[in-house]
Amino acid sequence: MAFKEEIRDLFARGHERYLRNVSVDCIIFGFHDSALKVLLLKANYADGWALPGGFIGREEGMDEAAIRVLQQRTHLGDIYLQQFRVFGQSGRPTQKMNHEKLKTLGIKSEGSWMFDRFITIGYYALVDFNKVNPTPDEFSIACEWFNVYELPPMMMDHADLIADALSFLRHQLNYRPIGNNLLPEKFTMPELQKLYETILGRKLDRRNFQRKILGVGILKRLEERKPGVAHKAPYYYKFDLRKYQKALEAGMGFQIQ
Amino acid sequence: MAFKEEIRDLFARGHERYLRNVSVDCIIFGFHDSALKVLLLKANYADGWALPGGFIGREEGMDEAAIRVLQQRTHLGDIYLQQFRVFGQSGRPTQKMNHEKLKTLGIKSEGSWMFDRFITIGYYALVDFNKVNPTPDEFSIACEWFNVYELPPMMMDHADLIADALSFLRHQLNYRPIGNNLLPEKFTMPELQKLYETILGRKLDRRNFQRKILGVGILKRLEERKPGVAHKAPYYYKFDLRKYQKALEAGMGFQIQ
Repeated sequence: MAFKEEIRDLFARGHERYLRNVSVDCIIFGFHDSALKVLLLKANYADGWALPGGFIGREEGMDEAAIRVLQQRTHLGDIYLQQFRVFGQSGRPTQKMNHEKLKTLGIKSEGSWMFDRFITIGYYALVDFNKVNPTPDEFSIACEWFNVYELPPMMMDHADLIADALSFLRHQLNYRPIGNNLLPEKFTMPELQKLYETILGRKLDRRNFQRKILGVGILKRLEERKPGVAHKAPYYYKFDLRKYQKALEAGMGFQIQ
Repeated sequence: MAFKEEIRDLFARGHERYLRNVSVDCIIFGFHDSALKVLLLKANYADGWALPGGFIGREEGMDEAAIRVLQQRTHLGDIYLQQFRVFGQSGRPTQKMNHEKLKTLGIKSEGSWMFDRFITIGYYALVDFNKVNPTPDEFSIACEWFNVYELPPMMMDHADLIADALSFLRHQLNYRPIGNNLLPEKFTMPELQKLYETILGRKLDRRNFQRKILGVGILKRLEERKPGVAHKAPYYYKFDLRKYQKALEAGMGFQIQ
């Protein structure tokens, strides 16, 4: 099908291929230049930016739908994607598209099933910023990273979804390790601390942080210091991936305070 | 509407009042006689037992739908109900009702929207067993407590939903306090340990447990011992509800091992 045909068909008969009233949205976090970023799409037929999201095929699993969205927008392979919350309040704003603009393409969008009420399942992923190839979808003209603390005007309640995912992520710092996928394979203690600080949005005490994170037992110190630092060059660390995985599964009790 | 009319209408036109393809199911846990119990309904028009669950009204929030289900089945007031996971795999079994039995009541159920694929949002609640008044719904003839380790034959994938909620609950023991609502207001250390053991399905070392749980700082020891115990009568404890609440929100790092 040509592109226009495909969109026309989605508006008119998409409910024959997709489940109604339920969708997925992905909050894809990356860490770059000491900033926590989130991947967004610039809408083509509406105002503002939106989270990557989509519908669930009638024969498709919900997790598979979220993974499909993530892969289509990032071209990343095997990524850990976690359901974190469902957004199902009755007052959720529905899609507001520019029906006039669509009409000029010969697409009749008014009254479509796509503007019905949707309960959306929120997923989040922590990805390696450098490996992502941001790719717009059929309803967008750009796909870009934004600092989570400096979001552009967002569609619907997507700013709330991001705030909620960030709050979930902060809470998870108390009992789950973080950093694998977000940091390079080897990193210094100040870099790891910076990641925590960026997610929490506040400074942490250096000594306390180091003592507590080493106490968790998921780090291996390498016999190698970061080059190019004149005085007291910091050591590199790696995650002990076996212990990291165990801490992910069993929880680890890390009270940053 | 008379009862039969109401059911006939639900099968035929329920999709005008409820969202399609999405439902809620509640895993309601109680603790009684040293056993972890779950509240189930015996189906009237199908074989087996089911979780209390329902559809989401088109003007109703998803959480409100779950609370409505919980209240109608238990008659409990203000209960903490938590979304824990969404079950959206593509192979989920659909409802299998006895269409013949319904037909004898003049109800045409075949081909109804109710047998379409549903993604269900799993909620769980920890309730005070003694305060619950189990009440069947329009599709059931009994509402009863069962030991989670001795379930009757279950409908659809509801046994999996319960296993998943139990596994979630076990995981939460690592970073959330538990016991408020499940235990009486004052309880002994052996009673609290028994609750943990019942949820985990295994014995714990008495001294280790006591040391670790006291270390969390959410318990207040009362100057009162349990009566009727001849030798070394155990002290009563209470939760410090302010600290308990704080630990619920911030996580608490309790590694039982």
